[in-house]
Amino acid sequence: MLTISNRGEQMPPSPIRKLVPYAEAAKKRGVKVYHLNIGQPDIETPPAIMDAVRKADIKVLEYSHSAGNESYRRKLVQYYKSVGIPVNYDQILITTGGSEAIMFGFFCCFNPGDEVIIPEPFYANYNGFACAAGVKVVPITSNIKTGFALPPIEDFEKVITPKTKGIIICSPNNPTGYLYSKEEMEALKTICLKHDLYLFSDEAYREFCYDGDYVSALHLTGMDQHVVLMDTISKRYSACGARLGALVTKNKQVYDTAMKFAQARLSPPGLAQIMGEAAIDLPESYFDAPKAEYLKRRNTIVKRLNAMPGVFCPNPGGAFYAMAQLPIDDSDVFCQWLLESFSYKNQTVMLAPASGFYGTPGLGKK
Amino acid sequence: MLTISNRGEQMPPSPIRKLVPYAEAAKKRGVKVYHLNIGQPDIETPPAIMDAVRKADIKVLEYSHSAGNESYRRKLVQYYKSVGIPVNYDQILITTGGSEAIMFGFFCCFNPGDEVIIPEPFYANYNGFACAAGVKVVPITSNIKTGFALPPIEDFEKVITPKTKGIIICSPNNPTGYLYSKEEMEALKTICLKHDLYLFSDEAYREFCYDGDYVSALHLTGMDQHVVLMDTISKRYSACGARLGALVTKNKQVYDTAMKFAQARLSPPGLAQIMGEAAIDLPESYFDAPKAEYLKRRNTIVKRLNAMPGVFCPNPGGAFYAMAQLPIDDSDVFCQWLLESFSYKNQTVMLAPASGFYGTPGLGKK
Repeated sequence: MLTISNRGEQMPPSPIRKLVPYAEAAKKRGVKVYHLNIGQPDIETPPAIMDAVRKADIKVLEYSHSAGNESYRRKLVQYYKSVGIPVNYDQILITTGGSEAIMFGFFCCFNPGDEVIIPEPFYANYNGFACAAGVKVVPITSNIKTGFALPPIEDFEKVITPKTKGIIICSPNNPTGYLYSKEEMEALKTICLKHDLYLFSDEAYREFCYDGDYVSALHLTGMDQHVVLMDTISKRYSACGARLGALVTKNKQVYDTAMKFAQARLSPPGLAQIMGEAAIDLPESYFDAPKAEYLKRRNTIVKRLNAMPGVFCPNPGGAFYAMAQLPIDDSDVFCQWLLESFSYKNQTVMLAPASGFYGTPGLGKK
Repeated sequence: MLTISNRGEQMPPSPIRKLVPYAEAAKKRGVKVYHLNIGQPDIETPPAIMDAVRKADIKVLEYSHSAGNESYRRKLVQYYKSVGIPVNYDQILITTGGSEAIMFGFFCCFNPGDEVIIPEPFYANYNGFACAAGVKVVPITSNIKTGFALPPIEDFEKVITPKTKGIIICSPNNPTGYLYSKEEMEALKTICLKHDLYLFSDEAYREFCYDGDYVSALHLTGMDQHVVLMDTISKRYSACGARLGALVTKNKQVYDTAMKFAQARLSPPGLAQIMGEAAIDLPESYFDAPKAEYLKRRNTIVKRLNAMPGVFCPNPGGAFYAMAQLPIDDSDVFCQWLLESFSYKNQTVMLAPASGFYGTPGLGKK
């Protein structure tokens, strides 16, 4: 009999997938559905970077270098310098979205059966890449009462085994918006150095910090070999559909290994690289407007949620997500109810149930 | 100690990688190097499909559906119908190049330790995806004397074990140009049905057949559940840099599983999908000029190679590759010599040593 692979069977579907039919049914009933369930910015993609594609004189749209066009990588060096990250162009590998950077990192650094620690709630798709790579995700729980701050180092120590090979963080965080402080980043450094762990740092939301300073994993000193930075232009320039990211590391062995995976898939998308390169020439002031808009929205939603009886929403220091505790028993049921039975002036919202962002069964219900 | 994963260590580098420094050195010496080593068409990308991107009115470049835009998939149904392949839009999953279609297929259908049979010489990057998925490639050797025809069915039977899960073919073939006949495709069907194997069919060169008719794996009747078709617009429309392909299958379980991998990486490139959609509107006559040009080149190279003493080059029925037997001992040394020591009127050629396309050590030397 033809069979599906074990990893194919174990591969988790998108956690919001089961809600999609309810959203579609609501729309068919004429209800306006606001999609708050996905990190898809509605801020305009900078016209200048779209124009760069329109004006590009392309006779043959060729494969680029497997690591991405050298011209783009050299311009990214300037960009990273502007955010305090000193790297060379040959430490930057251009990927098809941040997704491919995550995948390359997992495949290069972890064996099947290896364990990675991720503070939960976490970006649900890490589960998918872990499943593809045969890696076991070990969650440690951050608490809504502290705004989802880094769990205490003792919690990491408790779950570290000889199979533990890395820690994955995302700051500012998807889905909590929490921004790790300098102290928290230093604590991560200490534990990675002590146990010789990779620190995978997803920095997709770098530009959107509202309270406190952004600290990159590559700002930390004395742990260059440990850091694998995963980046993307998706959120930075409202260009999710471009599918353009980067894996950045000073660990030459990791870089060279990732290059072999990159060569197998030939090259990252060509037109997107034109956008990415043009984006470096945007004025520094470009981020002022989107950041102000996201800040205004954050303040509105956090204030209004906390004004509701029984609701608690910590104030996210960055990104554009908010995670709230509601007076409910089951977030999946609640999100379905919002689509199926609730409307206000013929409108409703689609939310992502928090349960999909936890590795520990039973969490995220409220 | 921080370690690289086993699969990262085992991951094969690009087989022409070691020649790159010699090509660069030749260029530095002022020698013009013709790159015959890579399947990068120099035929112009159809201006109409580049214009479609230029004229697209995009305010926010959003994620597309994980399976690709429905409008594009529906247009591809027309395209596949025009080449005799009846499929529905929900049997087409848009991928980031043919590469991602190969990867999704491997991850969905094969477990680590499973075996896939591939007639050699074969597209070298299958090795990379097999390594990433932990799949063992079992080569069976096709012979240059028959123009690299399908090896006899007995050769397949000899290597089939309980671990064998699939056969991978590419017709017209990269790197041999061989075009499988109806009889050869029927023989593959027989063996796949007998042993319940997947037939992975890489049909990147469908439009470029010069002698005989193209037979798709999806032209075969009675084996819909077995076929996973891997496709790309890279060669069809000289659009390698777009990174746009497709996985096409009527096996719903394979499709649904591939969708979970597709959801994890969110979406295929957006601008490329605009190109792909516009390409369906090109007139049928579009292929006349590129096909005539490739045919002229084939005839020239095959004739001139065979006119050289000790050289034999079979006549490729399709694609745009040719594989020749030369009066040499070691194709790697010869290809290096062409770059390092040979020039004619200050010009030379970069070739891909055949050794890189064989799974059996020691083959491809001549």
